[in-house]
Amino acid sequence: MADKVTIREVGMRDGLQSIAAIVPTETKIAWLDAEYAAGVRDFEVSSFVPPKLLPQLADAEAVIRHAMTLPGLKVAALIPNLRGAERGIALGVPEMNFVLSVSEGHNRSNVRRGTDESIEDFRRVVALCREQGETRPLINCGLATSFGCTIEGDVDEERVCRIAVEVAEAGADGLMLADTVGYGQPAAIGRVFRKVIGAVAPLPVMAHFHDTRGLGLANVLAAFEAGCRYFDASLGGLGGCPYAPGATGNIVLEDTAFMFEAMGVETGIDIEALAQVRDIVAKALPDVALHGAIAKAGLPRNFHPMAQAA
Amino acid sequence: MADKVTIREVGMRDGLQSIAAIVPTETKIAWLDAEYAAGVRDFEVSSFVPPKLLPQLADAEAVIRHAMTLPGLKVAALIPNLRGAERGIALGVPEMNFVLSVSEGHNRSNVRRGTDESIEDFRRVVALCREQGETRPLINCGLATSFGCTIEGDVDEERVCRIAVEVAEAGADGLMLADTVGYGQPAAIGRVFRKVIGAVAPLPVMAHFHDTRGLGLANVLAAFEAGCRYFDASLGGLGGCPYAPGATGNIVLEDTAFMFEAMGVETGIDIEALAQVRDIVAKALPDVALHGAIAKAGLPRNFHPMAQAA
Repeated sequence: MADKVTIREVGMRDGLQSIAAIVPTETKIAWLDAEYAAGVRDFEVSSFVPPKLLPQLADAEAVIRHAMTLPGLKVAALIPNLRGAERGIALGVPEMNFVLSVSEGHNRSNVRRGTDESIEDFRRVVALCREQGETRPLINCGLATSFGCTIEGDVDEERVCRIAVEVAEAGADGLMLADTVGYGQPAAIGRVFRKVIGAVAPLPVMAHFHDTRGLGLANVLAAFEAGCRYFDASLGGLGGCPYAPGATGNIVLEDTAFMFEAMGVETGIDIEALAQVRDIVAKALPDVALHGAIAKAGLPRNFHPMAQAA
Repeated sequence: MADKVTIREVGMRDGLQSIAAIVPTETKIAWLDAEYAAGVRDFEVSSFVPPKLLPQLADAEAVIRHAMTLPGLKVAALIPNLRGAERGIALGVPEMNFVLSVSEGHNRSNVRRGTDESIEDFRRVVALCREQGETRPLINCGLATSFGCTIEGDVDEERVCRIAVEVAEAGADGLMLADTVGYGQPAAIGRVFRKVIGAVAPLPVMAHFHDTRGLGLANVLAAFEAGCRYFDASLGGLGGCPYAPGATGNIVLEDTAFMFEAMGVETGIDIEALAQVRDIVAKALPDVALHGAIAKAGLPRNFHPMAQAA
């Protein structure tokens, strides 16, 4: 039986949040629908940040509400804090992602709190979710800067593992190890994923990588070999800093899906249909560069998609 | 002790051969000198093709003669046939690379001969080299289309292995497994490198990859894990087809070196000095896009180069 991976589209959250030009709600929904039609079944649809802070995601409720109508689609939303969790619960979102930074400096810079304080915040979010009883949402915790930090440089691998265990014991339904700033490299990623997966099993440990330094897919391969089966990505590598030309954001969804399918690992995604979705984003954001190789080069003649094989 | 890899610059041959604008000999020499100063010690400097067929490389003798003056630099040249080998031997080039295609259709399309006939040609080249006695050049054989072919699609992995053994028995000093058309993916690359390395040991088995579909560095990682320690690359990913916009050529030298050094694998290369060499190529070829991420994004703050550690 073929191996399988889940690739989650996070471009509507992580991709759009750094882009000033507001994408209309209908366009977000058209984008989501088109990817759904191409076989993508996992989305981080939006973020419950205060609309005043991030006008781009002020329509979180509307887009999520639509996503929840699509059969078999796994809908997740980012929550920055307890207030965000309350919005998510009010809406009935089935899965929420809380994020804290392993790097103390990065965490303080982001939320003016120590990492330990953010773990306490996460416990409060878990408690709130559990109060919802059987219909409670799943609550994951992302560990940002797991592979290096722009403020602190090195991030201790033992510390990543320790915080992962602490967060798992706090009641996380899953963990994301995030290479937030594109500092990761395959050797470190292989080591840390192996350790964390071993330490928190059977909790799912997901990978959230950025392709800033070109190692995105090599890092995906290293995480996969270490046992990871869940990967965040964004169409065209949307995201990254608009002030750093050429710096890509998340790893490219269509290239990631291509790599796995070419390797004989099932993704459920139709690569060519997915590549065509780029048109929707390109029209909505004409000034934003879309990255990725497979959409330009096309599928090779020795490509045998898993969906056809099955 | 740290693991080591050799990364060879092939841009002056594989990169330039698809570019019409002639790069002056002095510029090629300045480029080579600057990379030498950055620690690159292996070059495929040029190709002994008929100057009329490829005016870009008509100065092969001049550039190679200069390269041979640099202490510790490993100089190689491509030879398309016996006539090319004679030119190489006349010049005293220390290492020559012959290429044939594993795909019968690709070989016929390239040289109007079957793969078996090209293996016979290789035997003649080996014989000529051996006639030179103790000062004979090393003679390697590249197996093009080892991971798929634009004409035949799939290329049988057993056939790659069989031809590798045949070429090794014919007297090759080393083999290159080439993903000529950018069809390779990590699973196949891992399998084939493992088999071929096992079958021809202790002969060196080198990797020659193109980054056409974004999997270049993931493929490098897979080959490395399979035991490969020799990688071809080109500065800025120079090469590829000038008529396919966005399609890169060889894997990017500076990103490849960065990946290995970041992983703790010694390359001998100073990444920042190497990235600055791009200016020489950019000035000489203002209309050619240079690819690569590390030159744009810069080294991460958690980067500890092996040369400093040593």
